[in-house]
Amino acid sequence: MASRRPALRLFSQCRARSQLTSQRAPNCRRALSNLPPNPKTPRPTLSPKARFLSLTALGLLAAVPFLYKMALDDPLMLDVPTLAERDQLIKRERAITDTSPMRLRMEKFVKEQQKEIVKALEQVDGTKFRVDEWQRKEGGGGITCVLQEGKVFEKAGVGVSIVYGTLPKAAIMQMRANHKNIAEADNIPDSLEFFAAGLSLIAHPKNPMAPTVHLNYRYFETAKPDGTSGAWWFGGGSDLTPNYIFDEDAIQFHKSLKDVCDAHNKDYYPRFKKWCDEYFYNKHRRETRGIGGIFFDDLDETIQGKEDIFAFIQDGLKSFVPTYVPIIDRRKDMAFTEKEKEWQQIRRGRYVEFNLVHDRGTAFGLNTPGPRVEAILMSMPLTATWKYMYEAEPGSREERLVEVLREPKEWV
Amino acid sequence: MASRRPALRLFSQCRARSQLTSQRAPNCRRALSNLPPNPKTPRPTLSPKARFLSLTALGLLAAVPFLYKMALDDPLMLDVPTLAERDQLIKRERAITDTSPMRLRMEKFVKEQQKEIVKALEQVDGTKFRVDEWQRKEGGGGITCVLQEGKVFEKAGVGVSIVYGTLPKAAIMQMRANHKNIAEADNIPDSLEFFAAGLSLIAHPKNPMAPTVHLNYRYFETAKPDGTSGAWWFGGGSDLTPNYIFDEDAIQFHKSLKDVCDAHNKDYYPRFKKWCDEYFYNKHRRETRGIGGIFFDDLDETIQGKEDIFAFIQDGLKSFVPTYVPIIDRRKDMAFTEKEKEWQQIRRGRYVEFNLVHDRGTAFGLNTPGPRVEAILMSMPLTATWKYMYEAEPGSREERLVEVLREPKEWV
Repeated sequence: MASRRPALRLFSQCRARSQLTSQRAPNCRRALSNLPPNPKTPRPTLSPKARFLSLTALGLLAAVPFLYKMALDDPLMLDVPTLAERDQLIKRERAITDTSPMRLRMEKFVKEQQKEIVKALEQVDGTKFRVDEWQRKEGGGGITCVLQEGKVFEKAGVGVSIVYGTLPKAAIMQMRANHKNIAEADNIPDSLEFFAAGLSLIAHPKNPMAPTVHLNYRYFETAKPDGTSGAWWFGGGSDLTPNYIFDEDAIQFHKSLKDVCDAHNKDYYPRFKKWCDEYFYNKHRRETRGIGGIFFDDLDETIQGKEDIFAFIQDGLKSFVPTYVPIIDRRKDMAFTEKEKEWQQIRRGRYVEFNLVHDRGTAFGLNTPGPRVEAILMSMPLTATWKYMYEAEPGSREERLVEVLREPKEWV
Repeated sequence: MASRRPALRLFSQCRARSQLTSQRAPNCRRALSNLPPNPKTPRPTLSPKARFLSLTALGLLAAVPFLYKMALDDPLMLDVPTLAERDQLIKRERAITDTSPMRLRMEKFVKEQQKEIVKALEQVDGTKFRVDEWQRKEGGGGITCVLQEGKVFEKAGVGVSIVYGTLPKAAIMQMRANHKNIAEADNIPDSLEFFAAGLSLIAHPKNPMAPTVHLNYRYFETAKPDGTSGAWWFGGGSDLTPNYIFDEDAIQFHKSLKDVCDAHNKDYYPRFKKWCDEYFYNKHRRETRGIGGIFFDDLDETIQGKEDIFAFIQDGLKSFVPTYVPIIDRRKDMAFTEKEKEWQQIRRGRYVEFNLVHDRGTAFGLNTPGPRVEAILMSMPLTATWKYMYEAEPGSREERLVEVLREPKEWV
């Protein structure tokens, strides 16, 4: 149960609303959860630390993992149910359907997809994932599934995160740049509750001919004081990182994403393909991380309706297994030389460099106090190599990869 | 020869000083190099890009590598010899002695030490270093020496960098926080030439019982318009990163540094030891990178005289070989298990995390446009491992290391 300092909370609830109920503390709370909140009730005051953390979170919210530690130290004024508490109540009382809040639909969807993907990758590998469930004391939690040193995968991770937190005023003001409807310019609240849910996936195969794949789909919203959705948006994408280029794989991967995009909006694929090449750019190496795919963020009502976007998100995530599994099946048992394995390890080093130096999500996660490091760094390969001045031989297949990474191709 | 757009430069020199010489362009320049500069001559104007780069450089100047790309696009007003040109002239005309500018003494010293250290490590390993010399077109250059896959060292790098560049006004103002004498508050110039020289070293041994070592000593100064030194300071330090704690090694390493410090200033060791533990802190892991050593920056006339500090820097750098070589000699041939090798690889992963996520020098270097990536990342281990949820067994030697990294010890 998501609750901030339960004892103090109950105390303040009962104190503030004593006229509404004569029940004793233990029952006071449940009764209150069903009451409409008093819109005039001041929202919780955030400590300077919480403000800072939330503010930092904001600039980087685009990327996973969603690990925002919102330290709410002030027990005063916590007299309306939190968003996490409202959602707990809904989940206890009824099944999640198409009319449920998007928060709960997205949570349900990513958790189902996590199971599907884990099952599919377990079938490919013949090895079970380790499953770690965890709770966030501020509300929400996650499930991290990792397969390590399998038969096909060196390492694969599929993680779901559900986060409830609070944005301070400065963060809300900053977010208004991209999302005008988060608050009216002349009436910005001191704080806003938010929700974020996402699924992240990464798989590093053992065979150097088989490509690493990464995927992330996420949903974010803020709550209005009455608990209904305020601003909301989706983000996500998927990208492929081969060590050796097989045009067939690259075309299939991009075509699958383009088909999903085109079914929803003809502008999506060209825009999101470009965005992906730009985001996954290992600047200091002057090359993209891999051969791309799609990447997008801030998909809201200015682009398309909420149901339409959610349908797109669902199709995107569901397309992963039928796209990637045939690719890995084709590559997992191919013969390779020691030199090709070495090249894979060099490329793994580049992957580490991108994730630790440039990826905003990783950087944000790691710089958050008390991060869940092992969940964030499940994206790291099992092993990586750095060799001084290692260069692909002219005319080699290794050089072809580098050429493609230097100048992203249109695959479909 | 350090020169910015030589053709345009010559043209502007000859145009601006035509009354001083009747020689044709090719000779105009050498003649000018011997002339005192005209103090009323405006300094080169920096492009907005150059300003930005220089400003970024500033906040991070504390750490190596010194790779500041100062794009000087504006050919106007380049009518006085640059600091790099003055120094080239001095080096051509006379030997470097104790009365030479500190820039040249430091450059000479770190280059000599690089040779000494490379020789000593080659003797330990029985393998030659690869030596790469490189020039910076804005002035200065460097020598990168790397030994890879040797008998004792997985990877060892010893690099020297000499940098001439220009600080824009905003950077100068920012630097005044720590160095008041860089400019008068009411008379801050639009730009200032600077010089930086440093030696960096890292050695990752193969044997998991042998510790990784890192060292860096550096000098920075700005030039007054007449070419004499403006503000100046030294920085540096050295730290040890074992996979297994041998008290004997830790004590010897720290004692050697304390002896060097104490011979110059009794405050140095306690202050610089603490600074080291704070700087090399892998925040997201809540542990120090290794068992520390010393780290310091901004050592200037407010602390001690220039000659005294230079003497300290020299003693610090010279103490490296006699301190580290006995440690590596004791450990390089010790027996070890596969599990211990695995632990070393896990610790290498942590080293990579610190260097890529938290080390300001590396981050700055990599985020600079057109960085010399291979010189910056010579610090990377040859190989590293990330295993999900890998934990040291209770009561093991691996756990003892983690305990020490969680709570730095006083070794002497």
